[in-house]
Amino acid sequence: MPKLHKSVGKTAVEKPDQPVLRAIKGGKAAGAKTSPARATGKPAPLKPPAADDAPIVALNLEPAKLSPAMTAYFKKCQDRLGFIPNVLLAYAFDMAKLEAFVAMYNDLMLGDSGVSKVEREMIAVAVSSQNRCYYCLAAHGAAVRHYSGNPLLGEHLVMNYRVARLNKRHRAMLDFAVKLTASPWTIEEGDRERLRRAGFTDRDIWDISAVAGFFNMSNRVASATDMRPNVDYHKQAR
Amino acid sequence: MPKLHKSVGKTAVEKPDQPVLRAIKGGKAAGAKTSPARATGKPAPLKPPAADDAPIVALNLEPAKLSPAMTAYFKKCQDRLGFIPNVLLAYAFDMAKLEAFVAMYNDLMLGDSGVSKVEREMIAVAVSSQNRCYYCLAAHGAAVRHYSGNPLLGEHLVMNYRVARLNKRHRAMLDFAVKLTASPWTIEEGDRERLRRAGFTDRDIWDISAVAGFFNMSNRVASATDMRPNVDYHKQAR
Amino acid sequence: MPKLHKSVGKTAVEKPDQPVLRAIKGGKAAGAKTSPARATGKPAPLKPPAADDAPIVALNLEPAKLSPAMTAYFKKCQDRLGFIPNVLLAYAFDMAKLEAFVAMYNDLMLGDSGVSKVEREMIAVAVSSQNRCYYCLAAHGAAVRHYSGNPLLGEHLVMNYRVARLNKRHRAMLDFAVKLTASPWTIEEGDRERLRRAGFTDRDIWDISAVAGFFNMSNRVASATDMRPNVDYHKQAR
Amino acid sequence: MPKLHKSVGKTAVEKPDQPVLRAIKGGKAAGAKTSPARATGKPAPLKPPAADDAPIVALNLEPAKLSPAMTAYFKKCQDRLGFIPNVLLAYAFDMAKLEAFVAMYNDLMLGDSGVSKVEREMIAVAVSSQNRCYYCLAAHGAAVRHYSGNPLLGEHLVMNYRVARLNKRHRAMLDFAVKLTASPWTIEEGDRERLRRAGFTDRDIWDISAVAGFFNMSNRVASATDMRPNVDYHKQAR
Amino acid sequence: MPKLHKSVGKTAVEKPDQPVLRAIKGGKAAGAKTSPARATGKPAPLKPPAADDAPIVALNLEPAKLSPAMTAYFKKCQDRLGFIPNVLLAYAFDMAKLEAFVAMYNDLMLGDSGVSKVEREMIAVAVSSQNRCYYCLAAHGAAVRHYSGNPLLGEHLVMNYRVARLNKRHRAMLDFAVKLTASPWTIEEGDRERLRRAGFTDRDIWDISAVAGFFNMSNRVASATDMRPNVDYHKQAR
Amino acid sequence: MPKLHKSVGKTAVEKPDQPVLRAIKGGKAAGAKTSPARATGKPAPLKPPAADDAPIVALNLEPAKLSPAMTAYFKKCQDRLGFIPNVLLAYAFDMAKLEAFVAMYNDLMLGDSGVSKVEREMIAVAVSSQNRCYYCLAAHGAAVRHYSGNPLLGEHLVMNYRVARLNKRHRAMLDFAVKLTASPWTIEEGDRERLRRAGFTDRDIWDISAVAGFFNMSNRVASATDMRPNVDYHKQAR
Repeated sequence: MPKLHKSVGKTAVEKPDQPVLRAIKGGKAAGAKTSPARATGKPAPLKPPAADDAPIVALNLEPAKLSPAMTAYFKKCQDRLGFIPNVLLAYAFDMAKLEAFVAMYNDLMLGDSGVSKVEREMIAVAVSSQNRCYYCLAAHGAAVRHYSGNPLLGEHLVMNYRVARLNKRHRAMLDFAVKLTASPWTIEEGDRERLRRAGFTDRDIWDISAVAGFFNMSNRVASATDMRPNVDYHKQAR
Repeated sequence: MPKLHKSVGKTAVEKPDQPVLRAIKGGKAAGAKTSPARATGKPAPLKPPAADDAPIVALNLEPAKLSPAMTAYFKKCQDRLGFIPNVLLAYAFDMAKLEAFVAMYNDLMLGDSGVSKVEREMIAVAVSSQNRCYYCLAAHGAAVRHYSGNPLLGEHLVMNYRVARLNKRHRAMLDFAVKLTASPWTIEEGDRERLRRAGFTDRDIWDISAVAGFFNMSNRVASATDMRPNVDYHKQAR
Repeated sequence: MPKLHKSVGKTAVEKPDQPVLRAIKGGKAAGAKTSPARATGKPAPLKPPAADDAPIVALNLEPAKLSPAMTAYFKKCQDRLGFIPNVLLAYAFDMAKLEAFVAMYNDLMLGDSGVSKVEREMIAVAVSSQNRCYYCLAAHGAAVRHYSGNPLLGEHLVMNYRVARLNKRHRAMLDFAVKLTASPWTIEEGDRERLRRAGFTDRDIWDISAVAGFFNMSNRVASATDMRPNVDYHKQAR
Repeated sequence: MPKLHKSVGKTAVEKPDQPVLRAIKGGKAAGAKTSPARATGKPAPLKPPAADDAPIVALNLEPAKLSPAMTAYFKKCQDRLGFIPNVLLAYAFDMAKLEAFVAMYNDLMLGDSGVSKVEREMIAVAVSSQNRCYYCLAAHGAAVRHYSGNPLLGEHLVMNYRVARLNKRHRAMLDFAVKLTASPWTIEEGDRERLRRAGFTDRDIWDISAVAGFFNMSNRVASATDMRPNVDYHKQAR
Repeated sequence: MPKLHKSVGKTAVEKPDQPVLRAIKGGKAAGAKTSPARATGKPAPLKPPAADDAPIVALNLEPAKLSPAMTAYFKKCQDRLGFIPNVLLAYAFDMAKLEAFVAMYNDLMLGDSGVSKVEREMIAVAVSSQNRCYYCLAAHGAAVRHYSGNPLLGEHLVMNYRVARLNKRHRAMLDFAVKLTASPWTIEEGDRERLRRAGFTDRDIWDISAVAGFFNMSNRVASATDMRPNVDYHKQAR
Repeated sequence: MPKLHKSVGKTAVEKPDQPVLRAIKGGKAAGAKTSPARATGKPAPLKPPAADDAPIVALNLEPAKLSPAMTAYFKKCQDRLGFIPNVLLAYAFDMAKLEAFVAMYNDLMLGDSGVSKVEREMIAVAVSSQNRCYYCLAAHGAAVRHYSGNPLLGEHLVMNYRVARLNKRHRAMLDFAVKLTASPWTIEEGDRERLRRAGFTDRDIWDISAVAGFFNMSNRVASATDMRPNVDYHKQAR
């Protein structure tokens, strides 16, 4: 039976299809302290690390009952990742919003495209660095480290994508995404032409733009709500 | 039989379920010149106004076959609005992307919320003004003019929302949305508190953030592709 | 007998050469409610549009007696435009200031120049968009719509001049004017050379600079005083 | 017989009412080398200081014949200041423009106002510092040094007005002028209220705004044309 | 015998007190490929991680002979850290510069102060994040993770210090340091007062300012030379 | 016997190796009023110029006993300059800090380099203008006036280095220094290449970067502490 929520105590475990999202400001959700995952296997540091991702957001939103589709999806996340990404838990107060987010995310980040999955993750991180979004930098920085097989690349993109020694294609792609993030009103045909010269098709340009656009949305939802990334991300693929 | 695409000539009309989206750079789609809607009913100005919204985007993307759901949705748009919003035609090269966009848009802008529909349109315009997005300012500026019954309000939000004589609630709402747009990394608990003091619930704060986030995405997709608003918007509700 | 001031009641009508400018903060000038122009001919909207331009400015300044020259000039405005532009009423508390403003404005915007009148209006709008000036965008946006015979061009320049499909000359002209507005300290010989390559003479460069400079002044006087454009502008030349 | 133009050779001296403004790019006007004022009385430095203000502007504009009013005005300048401010020579290619500039300048900077003349000069310098305008910083920096009797104040305002130890009135005045310069669209009633609390009347607020606006114009005309201040300014009132 | 330089081949090893700093653009220093530290103990990733820190800087500078003091200092670094920080190798082309840098660094970061060592490291990271400096974020991010016993704190400060849940003292300290970094000309007595109210003495304020200032220098030397952090930093204290 | 401190009264003079740095906020140090240097030789202006540089900093820091090296150094300053630069007095509360500052400063500004001393001063002023640092603009503006033999050059660099008519080498040098100051994260190989094309060696590029970096530090220490330049600088080399 998958753990649907990191801060679920017994009650929640007993009602797996009705996870309790408690985004209580300034405190951990009930049961978190006795969570076995937290109580064991970690030497106590001098200053115990804060439970950085509880609450997940700084808004008090009651979780909704997961739809069957989302129940299945959360289980899949749990099985593959070992945890449910907090952004999904954050959206889980409303199934229409959660499902719309998941549909768009999965199409954009996992659907067919001439822009590879790791390239899309690179865009996610470069955009999120421009917007200084903690959630997305932690989650997608980990993804770049993992998918690229080059942990340093993840650090470069988090800190300043210009220090990464990118090929022409990747540099053009990130220059476009970052300019689109910082001053979208200045994008013109010349910018699209630079992408074409770097080998991107018009369909690729749409995909680059849509991914960059999507993270400009997600960065803002995350920043507006103080969304916290799962602590699991920080150590992944170092 | 609804016209699915403004620049459809006879061929397209004959194949209503397979509209041709021709976003040919620098030129009008085939058949546009003979479109009856354009050929009649308008006195020739000294300088004929450019066919501002053809092509709809500056990318050459082949339209896909509309899914049944989208066929129905486009018909509904045509019936109610008299035209299909160009953003839908722009996404119509890929049904997965179009349907994800429509699902998220309709939930955000038309779903239940403590933030009224006209308030959501106000956010759309204030965000789009910050990002200087032509498509969204034209389309949602018209919506504000229409829904508010106050044409000047639409102009205020397009030009500088600070000149609108807003009540405390609306000012707080737009201040938050514009700050979230301009410098999302600076949003903190104090900003959420200002919304709560203006009467918004935590759920409202999510909705304000999500709408502001959504237009930060749409503004960028529109700017990245030089998306052009339907000319119909410009005269609406003046 | 021309109406010299939109918010003139009986007294003023009786003394046509001594209009009363009442810029009372937070309220309408006396008599405005009973102004026939406002009381008739307009279907009541659900939310009646605010009398957006009363008071004209957020400063309490007593109007001065119009000089003969200004009396004649205001009459000419009334005859030709159907109203007195509010900026003139705003300056009318002091004849020296009003006359200096009118002299400079008329020379710059209507005098001989290699830069055409509509081009000068285009500069006015592009500069005012950069400065997000409500008064000037409303008034000069209407002028661009009118003089160009292309209503969309007015919208483009209000929202983001980069979306207008300008010829090389006009693009160079507006790029210069907007750069001069945003970061005047970075203008150098290369910028002037770009204008010359686009066909402008040195005298034209002066005129472009002077018009851009003038609206950087007017934008600031308008923003500093919350100057409101005549409501008449909003519907003109749509 | 006043020297109307610093770079006047014999011909010009013989036709005093028809000064020759030669704004030849990259070189001094004919006759300048033999100008007695330049040829004598100055020890040759190791690197002779560039003739910084010839040409006065980087545009090739033929001077017009001075009108009688401007002939008289230039003579007055020469008598009182010992030189003609270069900005006047720059505008002297067109009498309508010169006279409009002089009328507005003199009203704003020398007319009656609750804002004293030195205060208006302080605004001029603080605005010009924000815009990094060489001409206006040199000319009006000298004026502040002179009129205030405090040479350091001129330096403070040129470099960073926040280091000047200003009283509450002057600080509020310059904060307003600099904000109006940097982001005019953000000025609101609260900003005007701060001026009122510092003792300014509504008429004073107009004057502060008008002076700040005027220098936002002049800074841009000067930067657009590479206008050079008379070298005389640099040593004045140190 | 300590390895003084990561890219030392045989020659260097034979002359330990005369390390060869080869900052060859675009390539690794001679001998680097056969460096045992790199050749062993690491499973080959799919995409082998770039030798990110060779060359250390993008300038071709010949290393100087280490002075006795610096020989001893480098040995101490090697013994304690296991490597020589690349910034020291970068400065090692000139002993006067290296020694001046080391003296200032050690005094600022390790000398007595009311601002603790981990607080000084926090300032280093927050400043470097504002300046997006790869070298300093990697090196001092690791230091914050290590010294604070809270790895997440290091990530917070790298990404956006506002997401760290700081106490009042630390927040005031970083707000000051970041404002001093972004717009030093706006720091005034009120800013110092906020630090005093958070419990800092005037001497502490000097130290906070000096550390923030120092990293504004180091960030720029690092960015100007494309200085690369030792790869060792990235995995430290995760 | 040198005066070690401008605001030293009798006591201090009697203990020359133990100068008293009194940085009392809002007032002059004891004895300052009777300082002969201030009491004589200057006609009383209407508004006596404020004792602009007392206190030297807005922090209350007790001066330390000068080390023998610093005693000698201060004497040398007094002998050569006629005064002790206030920055040295400001650092004199701690000998380790003062000596580290002096060592780095003297190496950078006076040591051997392919970048001449006046070029280094030019960098100092251009960087300080970008950061609007009063102390450094006053002190190093005077140095540029003095060393270049061209007083106007100092004014240009204080106000806007782009108005100086620089040769290609100097323009490239200052463009790099100012870009490194304003947005260090955007410096890339292309920027270094521009310096190389202007004739600078890689070692010169280090020196330009180090000087620009150093003033980015000093500007911030000065702004953070409201450090005031010696009044002597203002009149030097006009």
